[in-house]
Amino acid sequence: MEIKNVTVAGGGVLGSQIALQSAYKGFAVTLWLRSEGSIERTRPKLERLRGIYKASLEALKTDPSAFCRGLTDSPDVPPAQLDELIARVDAAFDSLVLTTDVEQAFGGADLVIEAIAEVIAEKEAFYGSIAGALPEHAVLCTNSSTLLPSAMASFTGRPDRFLALHFANNIWKNNTAEVMGTAETSPASYRAVVDFARAIGMIPLELRKEQPGYLLNSMLVPFLNAAEALLANDVADVETIDRAWMLGTGAPLGPFRILDIVGLTTAYNIVAASPAAQEPGSTAARIAAMLKARIDEGKTGVNAGEGFYRYN
Amino acid sequence: MEIKNVTVAGGGVLGSQIALQSAYKGFAVTLWLRSEGSIERTRPKLERLRGIYKASLEALKTDPSAFCRGLTDSPDVPPAQLDELIARVDAAFDSLVLTTDVEQAFGGADLVIEAIAEVIAEKEAFYGSIAGALPEHAVLCTNSSTLLPSAMASFTGRPDRFLALHFANNIWKNNTAEVMGTAETSPASYRAVVDFARAIGMIPLELRKEQPGYLLNSMLVPFLNAAEALLANDVADVETIDRAWMLGTGAPLGPFRILDIVGLTTAYNIVAASPAAQEPGSTAARIAAMLKARIDEGKTGVNAGEGFYRYN
Repeated sequence: MEIKNVTVAGGGVLGSQIALQSAYKGFAVTLWLRSEGSIERTRPKLERLRGIYKASLEALKTDPSAFCRGLTDSPDVPPAQLDELIARVDAAFDSLVLTTDVEQAFGGADLVIEAIAEVIAEKEAFYGSIAGALPEHAVLCTNSSTLLPSAMASFTGRPDRFLALHFANNIWKNNTAEVMGTAETSPASYRAVVDFARAIGMIPLELRKEQPGYLLNSMLVPFLNAAEALLANDVADVETIDRAWMLGTGAPLGPFRILDIVGLTTAYNIVAASPAAQEPGSTAARIAAMLKARIDEGKTGVNAGEGFYRYN
Repeated sequence: MEIKNVTVAGGGVLGSQIALQSAYKGFAVTLWLRSEGSIERTRPKLERLRGIYKASLEALKTDPSAFCRGLTDSPDVPPAQLDELIARVDAAFDSLVLTTDVEQAFGGADLVIEAIAEVIAEKEAFYGSIAGALPEHAVLCTNSSTLLPSAMASFTGRPDRFLALHFANNIWKNNTAEVMGTAETSPASYRAVVDFARAIGMIPLELRKEQPGYLLNSMLVPFLNAAEALLANDVADVETIDRAWMLGTGAPLGPFRILDIVGLTTAYNIVAASPAAQEPGSTAARIAAMLKARIDEGKTGVNAGEGFYRYN
């Protein structure tokens, strides 16, 4: 099946990135938003992304380290071609259609990427509201990080054409896209989404079955939890634990640098939701308390200027 | 306290490396071995290490990537100075005293590093056999990976002067040394061992309390286990899981490359010993079966030429 018209639902951090990236790579993109207020809040995000895309391509003329895997195939692109790509960013930005109209947004969609709030009731209402407008052949993807597609498949009325396409933040740089179907997803829909992910400059990571947390978070969460436990149990300090990981594995970042990027609030929400954290005196409870103390001081990570480390 | 005379007990993989490294950095090193047969088996290991040390220093004359953190402080060393260091390797090798004599090995020791088999009864017999020969001030370290020093402290007769100093394999390159005391270890002994580790070119990683697995393995084991679970549950293939980790965290190696280096037999022993692996149908049991199948085919990792990947 051929995908030309892509509709992204939701203009949050990821929704806006997916929309601009897809348009940049030549797709006709509509961004469906819930209200006029959402449209007004999404425009500056898209403006900001346009600036980042153009600045990254401009920087690549003189600095190979400015290479973003989602923007060009390699760091070696002649300046004239980079100028064409910069013009393409503007054209992509201008081509985006932002609308609250369900018929306009979904009536001609080949592919829908849902990136709305992680609330199951909202997902249900959303999929119910678009079902009547969608063309028969349209494939639906959810970008949900925390809900499994099988929990939403029945809402869509087309479980064979429904799966998860999970992006990382800053998709023009961190261009992985985890592709995960349910037991009902048809192979044709799965392949179409893998191909689409590749077509918009992503590296598709194919999951053969449902897995909460997909691949990356399935490994990252227990790893970060182990590091948090060492700190919460006062086995060593932040710098020593990070150094042990970096020197022992050659990784560029230790767990606490990664936690500062992920954000301490997200890390806290994950551990606080675990059954072990409800037992006073458990390691999980100590981890939660340790993270909460930092969060209460405003040290929530890189974005706040301080987390486990200080940033300028 | 000043450390001059270092005695290493055991001529295995780590014992021989610790002995040569300590001599290379200027300490008077005695290697105590259990029998004449052990001495004969240890000599070729030391010869091989001498060759590696000299070849690495020689290569550094023309190739900065040959830099080994345990051999020189930086990659920028003038050739004449490298020639001096190469001569120092020979001098260090020649200075090593190999003996089975307890009085000769331990009678003048300031520091003992025990690197014998990971069998508690052997540790007990060893510490008991040397107690009478040791000078009062001598500090004892165990390099044990799997036994906690508190489980051995009573064997030594000097629990205040006993702690763990845990090396990584290939210490001239992977120069971390985890320093871990028990509740009884005196601060002075702890500091003396930290200083010694630094003096032989290691980066000491200071643990404030006992932790099974120290720092690195405390993080590595749950991380590798999570990756093994993804494979054993057929969520994705080896290459995809590795790619998810490398692209998502910027790490140079994914979990299955690391497992090939660690060795599948070690990974199998860890998971097979867990209570969960005894339950048929559990993820741990599936992981154990998956590793065992590869081990039975001789695919035990890099050293065998094949593990999860093939090596030439």
